[in-house]
Amino acid sequence: MYLRYLEALDEDGQRTASSDELAQLCGTTPAQVRKDLSFFGSFGKRGLGYPVHELTDHLQEILGLRQEWRVIIVGAGKIGAALANYRGFRQRRFTVIGVYDNDPAKVGSSWGAAPIRAMDALEGDIARDGAQIAVLAVPGEHAQPVVDRLVGAGIRAILNFAPAQLVVPEHVSVQSVNMAMELERLSFALANSDQDG
Amino acid sequence: MYLRYLEALDEDGQRTASSDELAQLCGTTPAQVRKDLSFFGSFGKRGLGYPVHELTDHLQEILGLRQEWRVIIVGAGKIGAALANYRGFRQRRFTVIGVYDNDPAKVGSSWGAAPIRAMDALEGDIARDGAQIAVLAVPGEHAQPVVDRLVGAGIRAILNFAPAQLVVPEHVSVQSVNMAMELERLSFALANSDQDG
Repeated sequence: MYLRYLEALDEDGQRTASSDELAQLCGTTPAQVRKDLSFFGSFGKRGLGYPVHELTDHLQEILGLRQEWRVIIVGAGKIGAALANYRGFRQRRFTVIGVYDNDPAKVGSSWGAAPIRAMDALEGDIARDGAQIAVLAVPGEHAQPVVDRLVGAGIRAILNFAPAQLVVPEHVSVQSVNMAMELERLSFALANSDQDG
Repeated sequence: MYLRYLEALDEDGQRTASSDELAQLCGTTPAQVRKDLSFFGSFGKRGLGYPVHELTDHLQEILGLRQEWRVIIVGAGKIGAALANYRGFRQRRFTVIGVYDNDPAKVGSSWGAAPIRAMDALEGDIARDGAQIAVLAVPGEHAQPVVDRLVGAGIRAILNFAPAQLVVPEHVSVQSVNMAMELERLSFALANSDQDG
């Protein structure tokens, strides 16, 4: 969150930001800002504020956002298509280098620069191209078998859109985006709230 | 998560499920299953297991999934389009009754049964049609002003896809899906993990 606001300030050409200003932007307190940012080194100077550009650089570096990541998308359905076009990938130097699907009507075409390839090619391509991150956009019942193949081929980070609990070894990171669960939380909140709120 | 597995078992026609079976499906322990499900009443009987259909019904009821919710989507871009087609909405009785955008090329057409309407019509339509949930799929800089209008018009639940921190009154529920943050978490994990992991 800090990074997002710092990037915006940096783009606007602002040189320094006080903890008061960052606190207001992030909806927290100046003391919390100073505490959080102190984890990343002694950047803030009393009375001078934080140097926006240097702190932005530093946070990008820590988050691994200054290097390029090679991404594959498994599942060339609607979610996969929306993601292939997602500009947030490019902004964070995530390059989609391939899309995998079993549909013969799709295999052989491409989405932008990314070719759509058959699932058979998955392991060989990962070894050859050095993909690091896989986006999982397959139906829930196919998720775990695909994950096992990805992990076996050396993938260590998975962004999961399939409605399934995934089992992975400890060295593999999984982030799940579970739309169904978000909807259920909203539904629960509405159903159990006072109508006069 | 319990509901998702119970629904699957119920569809398969299974009458009862033991805490052992649910624990294995959900990746937890039988003791945790018994503790979690005891919150919803005394369903499980020692030696007999949980009655799958009754427990499914009960959890759906608690989560507000047995009633219909009227949903509007604000922002007729790529995310909005992917969501309008999202079958998870229909499975949970979320009915998209309208889409709102400022683009004159889009206003007047429709996505399935949902008309695309001008932003000017937002408050009047919400009052007339009784929309309860709004999906926010607008650029970050437009998010808060749109949210203020939605809340003013009586919306009490927001599914937020805009990359922005939203400020809402206490009686309004917000669930945010923040792709950028998921990507940063993966990037951070990769950048800071042992390559030999």
